[in-house]
Amino acid sequence: MEFKVLGKDGKARAGVIKTNNGEVLTPAFMPVGTQATVKTMSPEELAEIGYQMILANAYHLYLRPGHKIIEKLGGLHRFMNWKSAILTDSGGFQVYSLAKLRKISDEGVEFQSHIDGGRHFFSPEKVMEIQEALGADIIMPLDDCPALPASRSRLEESVERTVNWAKQSKAVKKKEGQALFGIIQGGLDIELRRRCFLELYQIGFSGYALGGLAVGEEPNERAKIVEEMSRILPEDKPRYLMGVGPVEECLSAVRQGIDLFDCVLATRNARNGQIFTSSGKINIKNSEYAEDESPLDRECDCYVCRNYTRAYLRHLYVSGEILGIRLNTWHNLYYYQMFFTRMREAVMAGKFEEFYLEGKKKFEEER
Amino acid sequence: MEFKVLGKDGKARAGVIKTNNGEVLTPAFMPVGTQATVKTMSPEELAEIGYQMILANAYHLYLRPGHKIIEKLGGLHRFMNWKSAILTDSGGFQVYSLAKLRKISDEGVEFQSHIDGGRHFFSPEKVMEIQEALGADIIMPLDDCPALPASRSRLEESVERTVNWAKQSKAVKKKEGQALFGIIQGGLDIELRRRCFLELYQIGFSGYALGGLAVGEEPNERAKIVEEMSRILPEDKPRYLMGVGPVEECLSAVRQGIDLFDCVLATRNARNGQIFTSSGKINIKNSEYAEDESPLDRECDCYVCRNYTRAYLRHLYVSGEILGIRLNTWHNLYYYQMFFTRMREAVMAGKFEEFYLEGKKKFEEER
Repeated sequence: MEFKVLGKDGKARAGVIKTNNGEVLTPAFMPVGTQATVKTMSPEELAEIGYQMILANAYHLYLRPGHKIIEKLGGLHRFMNWKSAILTDSGGFQVYSLAKLRKISDEGVEFQSHIDGGRHFFSPEKVMEIQEALGADIIMPLDDCPALPASRSRLEESVERTVNWAKQSKAVKKKEGQALFGIIQGGLDIELRRRCFLELYQIGFSGYALGGLAVGEEPNERAKIVEEMSRILPEDKPRYLMGVGPVEECLSAVRQGIDLFDCVLATRNARNGQIFTSSGKINIKNSEYAEDESPLDRECDCYVCRNYTRAYLRHLYVSGEILGIRLNTWHNLYYYQMFFTRMREAVMAGKFEEFYLEGKKKFEEER
Repeated sequence: MEFKVLGKDGKARAGVIKTNNGEVLTPAFMPVGTQATVKTMSPEELAEIGYQMILANAYHLYLRPGHKIIEKLGGLHRFMNWKSAILTDSGGFQVYSLAKLRKISDEGVEFQSHIDGGRHFFSPEKVMEIQEALGADIIMPLDDCPALPASRSRLEESVERTVNWAKQSKAVKKKEGQALFGIIQGGLDIELRRRCFLELYQIGFSGYALGGLAVGEEPNERAKIVEEMSRILPEDKPRYLMGVGPVEECLSAVRQGIDLFDCVLATRNARNGQIFTSSGKINIKNSEYAEDESPLDRECDCYVCRNYTRAYLRHLYVSGEILGIRLNTWHNLYYYQMFFTRMREAVMAGKFEEFYLEGKKKFEEER
């Protein structure tokens, strides 16, 4: 993996990540394909929208269908017919949010599957083995990801473990071309966050991720961590803000120099009928759209907005038709991709601050 | 609407129906798009597979979103972004199979909506009004469709009503280019079927449909009706066997000179994991496919078979992923379309009997 910053405007950067499976222009939003599919979408549709990297999940794919099956079938790219880059998350977060009866120790995490209750154990090495088998382009080490708020001593423990596990993860053999990122923990404690980063930096990783956020804290608390950390994150490595997805937060984080994002928001909201538009969110379920012949978003030129009315999409939604959530998802993912493309263009044109202020004003008006 | 027979082999015919929304090569299978969407599929995907006409349902669209809304939005083609032909069924069958507390009289049917229990009344004229608003290329009159077995007197009543309603339907103004078919009732009673047809023929319709089948009788009883009726159906009009879908039955019916078919089998089975292949049906849920790297059907060259393994499709299915039922549906619809294309080619090449015997043998072996 190679990373280059191609343009800067303030702290905001436009760059490119080169992987064995193509380039990823940054800042980039990664659609979430937890179970080896971005819900409702085909790989060709994602590529048509412009996505160059998606996220999949080691925890989920380990449990079902099993990483060894995917390896035997030629790896995750081939398994799911996705020809561009993939980042796999380690499962550290999922063990905390989904699994039952987890028991954490310095050796790893024991947990029960959320699917069938079966007992499993994740060590840092095991999680690397899983991700080597999956063959993603960028992989993440097992981390200790506490829910917030958390006590200082819990956060200290989490940082220590996360650093040790990162070191162990780095020592494990990977697939050729697989890049390992470090995950920074430390909750809302800047000093702990700094300490965690500095120790990870000494080990040395291909990129650095802010983990353990979007786990209960307020957006402004999160923003403060992003701002503080962006002062010390190395310029020459990709910076990844894990699991944070509201576009207004992405905008602020890009302004601080963040390059990568992932979030279920775009896809999950679509399945609930919530649509992102250039004039704010709408819910397509609402009866006010029953006879509305306008597209979801007049300013959008995606496949959905070019071909379907709100009235039709509402009809599909209230009728429980799958095409409805397919089209909603398509539009929301296009909205995100366009927003990121515009951020990138603004950086390259030296007009990011203008873009940022305009965006911020708009999002505030919509609230 | 115009219909031409372009080739014959025995009683089997290859023809073309010309509509305001393009040509439909026959014999043709129409995917069912009850609620203005063929479940899980986009219109472009249906066109890519080769479909030239789909079926939608007046009963469903009247109840939701309402035919007047669809009319206001430019008609059904525009509403659902489908650029080829549409046939709408009248709802006669749906009133019997879905609605509650129906009360039938010579004036029409009173029923309660299966969605919200609201009371509605369908007269033959009302059903024409609905279909004029929807604007389908081929429309069907309200008919009286009894479940089988039915008494002789019930069947006689059904035939009489169906003929009277067909006459009333013909008298109603339609959209320019809209073709009205006649629906032949009469259950398994050949004499009643003949009587029904002859009376409809005197009124005169653009095509003739065998209705009231696949409502409880055995396939061989159905086949007998098809065989007997095909002797007297006019050569120069399309012949439509309503709601009958197993490919082996379509094969036999095409041999008797049937041109049009519709059935939910291809799409519904796909959603239940049942896949049609050139070597018989399989259920993708089965654990035997967990590590199977072969495509659904080695002899199929559809998008799904070119890009995905059974192992992946099983994973999607057992994980409850929508892409799974999308891809299953795609493949099954492709299977049907290919089967119909081959029947047509066999007729045009004068080799239909050979194709029929081979197919029949294969289907028997698979049982």
